[in-house]
Amino acid sequence: MSLLVVGSLGLDDIETPFAKVENAVGGSAVYISLAASYFSPITNLVGVVGEDFPQDYLQMMRERNIDLDGLQIIENGKTFRYGCKYSYDMNHRDSLFTDLNVFKDFNPIIPQNYLSTRYVMLGNIDPVLQLGVLNQLDGKKLVVCDTMNYWIERMNKELKETLKHVDILIINDSEARMLAGEPNLIHAGRKILEMGPSKLVIKKGEHGCLLITDEIIFAAPAYPLENIFDPTGAGDCFAGGFIGYLLKNDLIDNNALRRAVIYGSVMASFCVEKFSVEGLLDLNYLKIHDRFLQFFTLTHFEES
Amino acid sequence: MSLLVVGSLGLDDIETPFAKVENAVGGSAVYISLAASYFSPITNLVGVVGEDFPQDYLQMMRERNIDLDGLQIIENGKTFRYGCKYSYDMNHRDSLFTDLNVFKDFNPIIPQNYLSTRYVMLGNIDPVLQLGVLNQLDGKKLVVCDTMNYWIERMNKELKETLKHVDILIINDSEARMLAGEPNLIHAGRKILEMGPSKLVIKKGEHGCLLITDEIIFAAPAYPLENIFDPTGAGDCFAGGFIGYLLKNDLIDNNALRRAVIYGSVMASFCVEKFSVEGLLDLNYLKIHDRFLQFFTLTHFEES
Repeated sequence: MSLLVVGSLGLDDIETPFAKVENAVGGSAVYISLAASYFSPITNLVGVVGEDFPQDYLQMMRERNIDLDGLQIIENGKTFRYGCKYSYDMNHRDSLFTDLNVFKDFNPIIPQNYLSTRYVMLGNIDPVLQLGVLNQLDGKKLVVCDTMNYWIERMNKELKETLKHVDILIINDSEARMLAGEPNLIHAGRKILEMGPSKLVIKKGEHGCLLITDEIIFAAPAYPLENIFDPTGAGDCFAGGFIGYLLKNDLIDNNALRRAVIYGSVMASFCVEKFSVEGLLDLNYLKIHDRFLQFFTLTHFEES
Repeated sequence: MSLLVVGSLGLDDIETPFAKVENAVGGSAVYISLAASYFSPITNLVGVVGEDFPQDYLQMMRERNIDLDGLQIIENGKTFRYGCKYSYDMNHRDSLFTDLNVFKDFNPIIPQNYLSTRYVMLGNIDPVLQLGVLNQLDGKKLVVCDTMNYWIERMNKELKETLKHVDILIINDSEARMLAGEPNLIHAGRKILEMGPSKLVIKKGEHGCLLITDEIIFAAPAYPLENIFDPTGAGDCFAGGFIGYLLKNDLIDNNALRRAVIYGSVMASFCVEKFSVEGLLDLNYLKIHDRFLQFFTLTHFEES
């Protein structure tokens, strides 16, 4: 069983109230793949970098069974770069710069040996490219998709076309309100389910997330961390843990979905505890399962 | 077993995107008492109104076993009045006016027959008055207290003195951050526990709430309502359901506290579904228990 991940790879400059890093590995495909690597035996990554992307990072991914046959390395090209600065309370970030570089002309071509991948995670990229990926695949069982306000505003029609082919959409609360044109989140969720996805996860940052389907609503808190060092990549780690858990058991019923939301939240909590991808590098099944159980303690009450 | 509630009674003008009411019954003591009345056999109310406070409202409270021996009715006085207007998404309200009237000189005097009440709920009033109430009582088992940014800013020292005599503080997230001078909510919670209360509930509006003690952290979502008509009083109804449930079972262990948080959330959800106190008038045990079970479904996942 393998997972296909399509998204960005980049080099990030991140400043928080606690520290500052430059040229840290980043991008949605990197965070998703690293988080999923604790669940998925093999992760097939499709993306693009320039020649300046450090070999160490590629090696680090290969060591985690992340297959890079689908990674385009553009000769003389420069990798996508992003810089941001977080406010004191970490709830707000200002983008300082976005240099698309080789990502500007990214055309995801799915290698032959990836074409029958059953679990597909579409990171936050142009919805036309996302649909292009889906059209190349056969035998899809589950398509999970992320997007953002940029695409909702500027490529609304194209995004809605892509959503018709998506099983689970994962977006944040302001994006859900924007996409549905509706301030009440539950109303917004219902409207989005009419656009195509049969399931929706609405991420609310430090306030946790909501899973909304035709059958259930499930609410999960965020893990109550005392030290949040860098929120970058948290949403992508959520997605990686979420789809990774579903793939691991190859089962998508309500119980599995609820647990997948928690495993996603677990991976997001590890992500934000350290800078860049550092929080994702030294995990193992026991650490992950232990935090899963802490989520149980955090939310459990006696029914009677 | 009876509950003592001290707080405000008022007449509210409320405007939401959906409707507008004038002279609706309001005030913390009213919302707390009504919510608690479904749990507490007798609720002893201490507060003040003017002669203009409608007799119908007093009768409505008496019918719910809310004892009004502690209610001061000031001859020729005018009742506390408050006006506010909610924004489109209901997450923000602007105060339009606050006429303290008879509330300005409120001095809560506890009637003889209330003095041995074991469960005490101090609504959001001047912390000096709150402490004055506690000093009159003997035999207290549990003191739950609410406050607000106004007192945190202007009577910080007095508030901190009162907090030394409080068992459970219930405040919202921005107030917790302000009181502790700390942006991280968990850090803020730990700091507040050092001020006196052994337990803290942080309310986060549509994002639910957190219970923080030395032993546990418990997170509860808000009930996912599609129609929120009027958020006024939600926090007070939470407090009423919370202390009411603890009193009903006369037990304050971790399991009871977790369930009390959910019953508080249940009462808050009924409150916001209708205007003013309307959502609290036609409930019964079955309706309340049914929503409690819905909270279980909303948050439950299999541990293994």
